[in-house]
Amino acid sequence: MISSKWVVLVIYAMEDGPVRYGEFSRRIEGISKKMLTQTLRQLERDGLIERDIHPTVPPAVEYRLTALGESLLPFMRQLKTWAAANLPLVEAARTRFDAQSLAE
Amino acid sequence: MISSKWVVLVIYAMEDGPVRYGEFSRRIEGISKKMLTQTLRQLERDGLIERDIHPTVPPAVEYRLTALGESLLPFMRQLKTWAAANLPLVEAARTRFDAQSLAE
Repeated sequence: MISSKWVVLVIYAMEDGPVRYGEFSRRIEGISKKMLTQTLRQLERDGLIERDIHPTVPPAVEYRLTALGESLLPFMRQLKTWAAANLPLVEAARTRFDAQSLAE
Repeated sequence: MISSKWVVLVIYAMEDGPVRYGEFSRRIEGISKKMLTQTLRQLERDGLIERDIHPTVPPAVEYRLTALGESLLPFMRQLKTWAAANLPLVEAARTRFDAQSLAE
């Protein structure tokens, strides 16, 4: 279910309200179209977001969090705070681990 | 980094202290040896767990959370509570989504 960094970032992008499909890639650095489509589909399937299609020409597709999706936001915020505080420690651990693996 | 259901369950398994390699598969239903080894390696590389090798015959490998790993436990508990409360809603959403996809 909640299984990737992209899920966290895509949910987080809708924190302040609905987001159009094209807007996600501007807000989320490095997400491919394929990964965005796959993540949005998974979140919609899990009932965490809803999709609205506006009958403009061409039709505009908008996504927003459901109540269930919004109930995850507190986690996302805490996880984001945790990551900001601890990512340097994780990256240092990775450097040490990789150096050790090379030496073995 | 934190990217799979198995990561959550493996971290959670060490909540009360060190766990031997063989013990994980008894505690975590459905985890394959390959996935367990891969997850433990990722967590060790990220500095979230440490590995001790005891010189018994055969040698026993034990894993435990580092301070960094332990700082994630509050999330894991909240996520577990969230999942227990909301999994039925997610599963119902999936059933609806799959039925709609078939009808399209």
